[in-house]
Amino acid sequence: LTNATLSATLEDLLVSRNEERRKPKIPKGTRDFGPEQMAVREKAFGIITSVFKRHGAVSIDTPVFELKETLTGKYGEDSKLIYDLMDQGGEMLALRYDLTVPFARYLAIKNITNLKRYHIARVYRRDNPAMNRGRYREFYQCDFDIAGQYGVMIPDAEVLKVMTEILDNLNIGNYTIKLNHRKLLDAMLDLCGCPAEKFRPICSAIDKLDKEPWEKVRAEMVEDKGLAPEAADKIGTYVVKKGGAMELYNDLTQQQVFGTHAVAAEAMAELKLLFDYLDAMNVLPRITFDLSLARGLDYYTGVIFEAVLTDTDLVGSIGAGGRYDKLVGMFSGKDIPSVGASIGIERVFAIMEARAKTEAQRATETDVLVASIGKDMVKERMRLCNDLWTVGIKAEFVYVDNPKPQKQLSYALDNGIPWMLWIGEDEVNRSVVKIKHMATHTEEEVPRADICKVMAERLKAQ
Amino acid sequence: LTNATLSATLEDLLVSRNEERRKPKIPKGTRDFGPEQMAVREKAFGIITSVFKRHGAVSIDTPVFELKETLTGKYGEDSKLIYDLMDQGGEMLALRYDLTVPFARYLAIKNITNLKRYHIARVYRRDNPAMNRGRYREFYQCDFDIAGQYGVMIPDAEVLKVMTEILDNLNIGNYTIKLNHRKLLDAMLDLCGCPAEKFRPICSAIDKLDKEPWEKVRAEMVEDKGLAPEAADKIGTYVVKKGGAMELYNDLTQQQVFGTHAVAAEAMAELKLLFDYLDAMNVLPRITFDLSLARGLDYYTGVIFEAVLTDTDLVGSIGAGGRYDKLVGMFSGKDIPSVGASIGIERVFAIMEARAKTEAQRATETDVLVASIGKDMVKERMRLCNDLWTVGIKAEFVYVDNPKPQKQLSYALDNGIPWMLWIGEDEVNRSVVKIKHMATHTEEEVPRADICKVMAERLKAQ
Repeated sequence: LTNATLSATLEDLLVSRNEERRKPKIPKGTRDFGPEQMAVREKAFGIITSVFKRHGAVSIDTPVFELKETLTGKYGEDSKLIYDLMDQGGEMLALRYDLTVPFARYLAIKNITNLKRYHIARVYRRDNPAMNRGRYREFYQCDFDIAGQYGVMIPDAEVLKVMTEILDNLNIGNYTIKLNHRKLLDAMLDLCGCPAEKFRPICSAIDKLDKEPWEKVRAEMVEDKGLAPEAADKIGTYVVKKGGAMELYNDLTQQQVFGTHAVAAEAMAELKLLFDYLDAMNVLPRITFDLSLARGLDYYTGVIFEAVLTDTDLVGSIGAGGRYDKLVGMFSGKDIPSVGASIGIERVFAIMEARAKTEAQRATETDVLVASIGKDMVKERMRLCNDLWTVGIKAEFVYVDNPKPQKQLSYALDNGIPWMLWIGEDEVNRSVVKIKHMATHTEEEVPRADICKVMAERLKAQ
Repeated sequence: LTNATLSATLEDLLVSRNEERRKPKIPKGTRDFGPEQMAVREKAFGIITSVFKRHGAVSIDTPVFELKETLTGKYGEDSKLIYDLMDQGGEMLALRYDLTVPFARYLAIKNITNLKRYHIARVYRRDNPAMNRGRYREFYQCDFDIAGQYGVMIPDAEVLKVMTEILDNLNIGNYTIKLNHRKLLDAMLDLCGCPAEKFRPICSAIDKLDKEPWEKVRAEMVEDKGLAPEAADKIGTYVVKKGGAMELYNDLTQQQVFGTHAVAAEAMAELKLLFDYLDAMNVLPRITFDLSLARGLDYYTGVIFEAVLTDTDLVGSIGAGGRYDKLVGMFSGKDIPSVGASIGIERVFAIMEARAKTEAQRATETDVLVASIGKDMVKERMRLCNDLWTVGIKAEFVYVDNPKPQKQLSYALDNGIPWMLWIGEDEVNRSVVKIKHMATHTEEEVPRADICKVMAERLKAQ
């Protein structure tokens, strides 16, 4: 059985199944956004976008798929989660796995040497979905990145500031930002006797420490990745170290934990400067310096960080990022130092949606329902609605030829529409319209010719 | 050579090619949106969304891919343009081809019997791209649909009204909306001697009349689709008929073009009612009644329409839609009559982007650049910026340890930032900040403690 014949057989099966009208489904790990979820999503994006704009970022967007070769060799062990498109006689394509690699590819293609941009878009991972914990196969990321040759740790500090502003403004509970430095990790691995070619695979194992116990991670290092047991045990003594940013920094320095290791000294000097800047921007209390934070992705080269909610252990990371100075160079041959953060917004949606359920929320913004009494009033309702639309008033009428008054009243009440306009044969003959304010039950009669002006005034005064 | 070995070979090639740093590319038929294009896009979406909301529509979103079986059997000959995902051991998936089928699938899954919704999202077609004419493989559609059992032609009229409001508000030039009725087409084909099972394929051929000459379309009918030459010639006498809505309607009626054909009579009665409603909503002057309009898609069952710009022949259709009463039933077994329109926004972007190039446009909204004179002022700039961000003011500083004043001034001018705040050792010692208004070249000195309050007032007064 070759792939081709299997594929043809499946195609036939699907077509016939479809004709038998199977119960429709949506793909595993994805979801539809209904009107209520869309209202929450728009609110969250509004908050996030306003923070990005407050920091002077521009917005870009890239295609949902990239050439396969663009994504190859960027994600380490996570590459197996990439969605490939079928080869239908053209380019080899794959759905984007994150927004960072497309950003680097964008800079390389356009020959841009510095850019502060945000990008809100969906990414795709063939991961095991856990939808009640906010882990989907299709999900939004909200990314903010600063690319360019700049003063040491200055953009890094602002990226972390942006992350805290967003998490504060979304008002989703207490959080902390775990932070580490790839060079400090490398120095640590070097000091433990881990050979350089195993740095990235061992980092991948360390990265699992927030989900798995040390014994399991140690087994992965020794059995799967061939690290010497003594080296693994030595790593075990480092990765337990975490605490307040300056506290752990001072401890590590005083206890000379990294000895005279040159790479460690360099990383520690950068962290000292970063903590100083974060203090100036009032971010430092949010930081947990954590030697067990490793981040799975290959492309990080400097500071790395990950935000976690502290009031709940249901939800994991709600945002992460770091410095990646070599990624743009993988495309253009010319490195552009970059740092960025990504907010994993699906987990935020879950929290906000749960809260929205307890609050009454309208899915539409309709201000006026145009209603009629009696027969053959469709065109009168259309004319009146049309006049309201023309001056920009949000208005609806029910799509029924001769609707009962009670039915129209229910529609207004069910949808929280604050005003109704009533017309009947009598009103049409006298060229007037009756305005009803739903909350106060007050009514007034207005000349048909004045209705748009009066209605606009009433809405403005609301 | 099996698919599997070919795939493995290609994978190897791609990895090694990537390591040799090939010039990066984006997929054929797609494009990146830079900051200027994003500004245009946000403006267009803002206009379109405000029309949708004015008509009381709610918003939904669906995944970018669907199960392959969801898309199967919906698009007729266009099915060959669907992007399939690779079978990586799971479900068979395909990228969405439009937003209508996902909408119908959504209604069926959620068991919703009536909904007025809009949906702005990207769709995917493996078509021959013509990017200078706005034809992409990945492009946005802005859809508005009304589903539910309602008065005849009432929702159809509002959908057309929404379409004209959007095209008017986008201000992209003159346009007309070509309109026809699937039942009238079927009656016409029946009268010409076309057998019922060839209705849809022959419609597909007729649909090409706006791009191809009659002779070529006739050849497709006769040679490819096996229609009798006399039938094709008879069709040729019908499809030339077009004109103002009521004019052609009256001509067809007076000349008894459809004789006593029952289906034609039904369609004509519906059209009469529709034109009546469109007149009430002031849409009728925009309508061209056109017997050659066929629309390629299988799922239409009633009124069909397509908007075209009339000042230019560079751009084809900029929007289209129609009634599809049987699509939801293909998923749930229970029909829900529906009608909708889709705006093809990429062509609108192209027009708006060309216009934006002649106007100066800022990509950011930054109000204040915090600048410094002298050495070691990074943290002072950070503190000042942080205070501004805290009260919601959009502010930036340059990411350089000791930037020259001229460099900071250029940054403000290049980015159109209207205000600068200046600090130096002297200002810090005296606890003051210098405010500079760029347009008027005026300066004032303000106590450091008052700077947020004063700056907020200055911005409000702008």
